[in-house]
Amino acid sequence: MTFPHAHLLGIEPLSPADITAILDLAEEYVTLNRSATKHGDALAGLTQINMFFENSTRTQASFELAGKRLGADVMNMAMQASSLKKGETLIDTALTLNAMHPDLLVVRHPHSGAVDLLAQKVRCAVLNAGDGRHEHPTQALLDALTIRRAKGRLHRLTIAICGDIAHSRVARSNILLLGRMENRVRLIGPPTLMPAGIDAFGVEVYDDMRRGLEGADVVMMLRLQKERMDGGFIPSEREYYHRYGLDAEKLAHAKPDAIVMHPGPMNRGVEIDGEIADDINRSVIQDQVEMGVAVRMAAMDLLARNLRARRAAA
Amino acid sequence: MTFPHAHLLGIEPLSPADITAILDLAEEYVTLNRSATKHGDALAGLTQINMFFENSTRTQASFELAGKRLGADVMNMAMQASSLKKGETLIDTALTLNAMHPDLLVVRHPHSGAVDLLAQKVRCAVLNAGDGRHEHPTQALLDALTIRRAKGRLHRLTIAICGDIAHSRVARSNILLLGRMENRVRLIGPPTLMPAGIDAFGVEVYDDMRRGLEGADVVMMLRLQKERMDGGFIPSEREYYHRYGLDAEKLAHAKPDAIVMHPGPMNRGVEIDGEIADDINRSVIQDQVEMGVAVRMAAMDLLARNLRARRAAA
Amino acid sequence: MTFPHAHLLGIEPLSPADITAILDLAEEYVTLNRSATKHGDALAGLTQINMFFENSTRTQASFELAGKRLGADVMNMAMQASSLKKGETLIDTALTLNAMHPDLLVVRHPHSGAVDLLAQKVRCAVLNAGDGRHEHPTQALLDALTIRRAKGRLHRLTIAICGDIAHSRVARSNILLLGRMENRVRLIGPPTLMPAGIDAFGVEVYDDMRRGLEGADVVMMLRLQKERMDGGFIPSEREYYHRYGLDAEKLAHAKPDAIVMHPGPMNRGVEIDGEIADDINRSVIQDQVEMGVAVRMAAMDLLARNLRARRAAA
Repeated sequence: MTFPHAHLLGIEPLSPADITAILDLAEEYVTLNRSATKHGDALAGLTQINMFFENSTRTQASFELAGKRLGADVMNMAMQASSLKKGETLIDTALTLNAMHPDLLVVRHPHSGAVDLLAQKVRCAVLNAGDGRHEHPTQALLDALTIRRAKGRLHRLTIAICGDIAHSRVARSNILLLGRMENRVRLIGPPTLMPAGIDAFGVEVYDDMRRGLEGADVVMMLRLQKERMDGGFIPSEREYYHRYGLDAEKLAHAKPDAIVMHPGPMNRGVEIDGEIADDINRSVIQDQVEMGVAVRMAAMDLLARNLRARRAAA
Repeated sequence: MTFPHAHLLGIEPLSPADITAILDLAEEYVTLNRSATKHGDALAGLTQINMFFENSTRTQASFELAGKRLGADVMNMAMQASSLKKGETLIDTALTLNAMHPDLLVVRHPHSGAVDLLAQKVRCAVLNAGDGRHEHPTQALLDALTIRRAKGRLHRLTIAICGDIAHSRVARSNILLLGRMENRVRLIGPPTLMPAGIDAFGVEVYDDMRRGLEGADVVMMLRLQKERMDGGFIPSEREYYHRYGLDAEKLAHAKPDAIVMHPGPMNRGVEIDGEIADDINRSVIQDQVEMGVAVRMAAMDLLARNLRARRAAA
Repeated sequence: MTFPHAHLLGIEPLSPADITAILDLAEEYVTLNRSATKHGDALAGLTQINMFFENSTRTQASFELAGKRLGADVMNMAMQASSLKKGETLIDTALTLNAMHPDLLVVRHPHSGAVDLLAQKVRCAVLNAGDGRHEHPTQALLDALTIRRAKGRLHRLTIAICGDIAHSRVARSNILLLGRMENRVRLIGPPTLMPAGIDAFGVEVYDDMRRGLEGADVVMMLRLQKERMDGGFIPSEREYYHRYGLDAEKLAHAKPDAIVMHPGPMNRGVEIDGEIADDINRSVIQDQVEMGVAVRMAAMDLLARNLRARRAAA
């Protein structure tokens, strides 16, 4: 299993083989996490630092569990209450951390590109846990694993991504990954929440849910990112749900065996009807969370192998 | 040592044999915690998540140390700064956590019954670390262990619980446990801080400290829960101390060898005179903290054994 | 390697041999931290509690990594959001912690002397991670290790400490340590930021940077502690930089091979020119961070050895 990367900064630099390598290893960790003793030593002796400049209980917890279960020494740094208040720059923070000799650095940052910048300044493996509107690669990978397990394959599927595309790094990473694996990607949402220049990504764009869902194998709902809509158009929740919220009637336009996904946390009754979210025959939302831990274990394991190999060769 | 429960949600469902099983195992952990190498492997390979929807430095620390000393992978989730802000429901949070395959979930929540609800939605052992005015079972168990060690037995004692009974889950769990072990329980406090219907619990109610303490073996003071008295009567601290604060004169009415307890943190000079709190011949307040870690180790160990047995049988 | 102390409360009680013992052991940990498997077991089976009454991302992270890499069970207690809000005294907090049987207690507190007070109340080793304007011993030790590695010795050097001396426990601990090792210490800063009675410490005082830096082997810049200047004179940043900020022109007055230090986090353009901070031929600022983890590992290791020996003898 080769994975020729020093960092996991986005889906953009990954080949189909890279994606498959992560997913295949993640399958082994799904098994470990379901077993009686969910603890391994792939990261034993290594230091993992989680540096979250934006709060994210779920994603941080997923990375933290992933590292602890693989035996790493894991440290969370709450960067809100940190040196940044005292005027320290991102690069100084990076250099400081680097001097503590971490092996794996997991970073979430509100600015697109901040994680890439940081990766250039440190001598360890960096994992992007979400940067601005740019990328959130482990989310796309866990979505991919969830789809592959539910559908038996990860290619030639029709996948509808619905909602607030413009503010979503989840959408962006998923569009890249699903396109690379030769799926048909449709984006559905109000034109005001669709990013400019999206046509270049080889996707189909709809502003009508029923037409966009027609024949879809996968319906991927997005969270309405109100906290990121600075000054722009904010739809009323009721109007939004009426037009773009996933309910039984709209879902009936997709294939009968279509699965429903959501990256969480859900706004029930805004993006999605609560009953659909809870329908164990359609919804794979809890599977996504489970796959999240496994995918992060796999990604950190692969990056740690490369790190050890590079160091041994140095 | 059998403990036929999947969760520790309260004292209410526990038999005297269950209580004794926890306390007996806790004795072994008292010894471990006082030894040179205070680390075991009873929870090795298991994941413990502490989910505190209310701040509690002491209780969370006690559970965290208990888990780490038994070799669990322990993760704290600060739920104030969490997804709940984004509108996620408690049940969605529970389902998300469940998908991460925890083995032990320690939960504190401001609403009575919230922890029971959560336990119904997850496939792991849940420990109630305090829910609203309902129960705080590990506090009652650590109090019981402290009493049993100081008095040589846990039955046929006269135990006075003094103060703000109405707002106290500590009082409620203690009343249940001490009654079940066939002790004589007296409640002392102003009628305004006494819950309605308390007579049904087989306790004696006093509003005069001197009369209530007469002949008591154990004097258990409670914290004045000002933060939970929403809109109701709040006594002045000076008046409260005068009538219900434990001082040497009032304590003289109890038995000469009566022990003094407080769940902490103390308001010195409000509920209790500082000198009595520090009197090593009477006060077992620090012992309570020590027993807290041991009791939590024992409870998690017993629940983990059951979890493993259920999984092995499945 | 003997280190005849139960605590590390300050530099004041340390002999030159004590300082050398810590630095020599720290060298071994520098090597461990640079190796492929940066995990030992010197603290295995022990419990380390970090209790920070003041936020400090860097120092807390450094102690946390140090403990985890040596195999301790490490717990952070965020004391801002804690029992202190509920009116608990520092001593009650100490007694509570003590009852949980920690082995190593790392404490930062805004009041000078608070850590010493706490150490008298507990039965474990206490490390001062900064108390008020009093001491910050591990900072002085990491600075000493950095100097010793860069200069090949830690005596007969001319060391200029520049900036806000009055508010700096870093300066105070460094003055003590560097004096004890027989160096020539100069203090440079505006008279308003120079503590009263400083002459008693055997240092030379300057208010002119160029004169003070003349012939210096080491230039140690301090952080402008605006958050600690309650009500007093606050210089404008521009004026401060003009007179006391380290730039190339002022640095030219020091020896050609003088090294530049800063405890971080830096205010670039206030205390120090960004280019000098980044000049890998002059600046050892990142080395200081690296040495910080190693020095803390060494200090905790030595204290733990003493703790074990005392307990075995008891």
